Amino acid sequence: MTYCVGLFLRDGLVLLSDSRTHAGVDHISTYGKMHVFARAGERCINILTAGNLSVSQAVLQRLRDGIPETEDRASQTLDEVPSVMAAAQLVGSAIRAVYAEHGAAMKEQDVSFDVSMLVGGQVRGSPMGLYQVYAAGNYIAATPETPFLQIGEHKYGKPILDRAMNHDLGLPDGIKLALISMDSTLRSNLSVGLPLDLMVYRRDELDCVRRQRIDEDNAYFQSIRGQWSDALRQALRKMPAPDWPSDQLLN
Amino acid sequence: MTYCVGLFLRDGLVLLSDSRTHAGVDHISTYGKMHVFARAGERCINILTAGNLSVSQAVLQRLRDGIPETEDRASQTLDEVPSVMAAAQLVGSAIRAVYAEHGAAMKEQDVSFDVSMLVGGQVRGSPMGLYQVYAAGNYIAATPETPFLQIGEHKYGKPILDRAMNHDLGLPDGIKLALISMDSTLRSNLSVGLPLDLMVYRRDELDCVRRQRIDEDNAYFQSIRGQWSDALRQALRKMPAPDWPSDQLLN
Repeated sequence: MTYCVGLFLRDGLVLLSDSRTHAGVDHISTYGKMHVFARAGERCINILTAGNLSVSQAVLQRLRDGIPETEDRASQTLDEVPSVMAAAQLVGSAIRAVYAEHGAAMKEQDVSFDVSMLVGGQVRGSPMGLYQVYAAGNYIAATPETPFLQIGEHKYGKPILDRAMNHDLGLPDGIKLALISMDSTLRSNLSVGLPLDLMVYRRDELDCVRRQRIDEDNAYFQSIRGQWSDALRQALRKMPAPDWPSDQLLN
Repeated sequence: MTYCVGLFLRDGLVLLSDSRTHAGVDHISTYGKMHVFARAGERCINILTAGNLSVSQAVLQRLRDGIPETEDRASQTLDEVPSVMAAAQLVGSAIRAVYAEHGAAMKEQDVSFDVSMLVGGQVRGSPMGLYQVYAAGNYIAATPETPFLQIGEHKYGKPILDRAMNHDLGLPDGIKLALISMDSTLRSNLSVGLPLDLMVYRRDELDCVRRQRIDEDNAYFQSIRGQWSDALRQALRKMPAPDWPSDQLLN
């Protein structure tokens, strides 16, 4: 399983992925799920992947090789797209191409063509963007009203985002929030695992420089994990006691 | 969809269920999912249900009618079982009987025989217990090491339980925790909905008296929801700022 989350903030993007891949609990591997296509001063495009590993690897290979031209588009790689929206579109085309090659055979063997990707960043001359691309190659954008996107095992990490995320949060708070959302997922689903890849993109920076790999020894992540649990338990204690009818008092 | 949670505490049980049932977003109904079988001074058995409504209704009807005798058991109802474990076993038998009647026809129409139940309470002369019964009629018990059980849409409400729940929590804190876990689910999945049914059972009380139906106007639940969101946002602000290498500082 996988968990990837992208936060679309006024000042930039926070992108976070885990790195665990498994085919059964006795076949667990580490694969980075964050793929960076950058040229300083010109573009920073990040792709985060979830789903069937053979599908996402095939999609990334096609993106590196370039997607052949179609009626409405010349041959292209992510080094050439004029915007992050065009990057999302190209990723969608790559997914469709892989589906055309492998979809029928996978279906024949009852293997789901399961893939989804986040595409986030900026290309010079176009706005910063964050997109989620589905297995059919269609895609949606994050917006100030819906400022986060998740792929993979998304449910455990969603309650904190639903409550605390908004587009105007600063980047440091965004980093904390993404790490807490990931921590909730790590605790609840063993098939999501460390190390993590964290990318912070500042709007208009046009380079991918703020990247960290976070492993078990990362002191900051450890302190966030511990302090967050403590804060939740404290907050629970501070909640008002239940206000029950007097004939049903608990104490 | 449904969310039901049961907390197995040293001093008693906290059981909470929502009441929304749906067949598509344009066919939403309210059905209580908490069913109480009580006789003051003798037994308090609560059954919480999730899954296909026709299955859970058929199971409950069989439990009310009594499960016919088998080789290893005389005909029985929940008014007769000697323990909560025997109640869980009887619920399992009822599920198997319904499967025998409807399973093949449902499979023929590609409808999943999807049902799970929590069975919690106490019968005089036997220990308090909390069980989860699966669609095959098998069951597991909550224990001090694994002191909560969830059925239905369980993922959104699990992170707070993973962090804050333990068997030694007092009943008032258990009530808060169950309500917060439910609130996380209500916020993230529209197919889980108010009103809620809350049952608090005190160990050795042998009666089901602490029950509340919680609707949108319930002042206590409203205050918990608001204060919990505030507490989370405050806790987020108080987390330490990211400790990045100096050449990658965010501000």
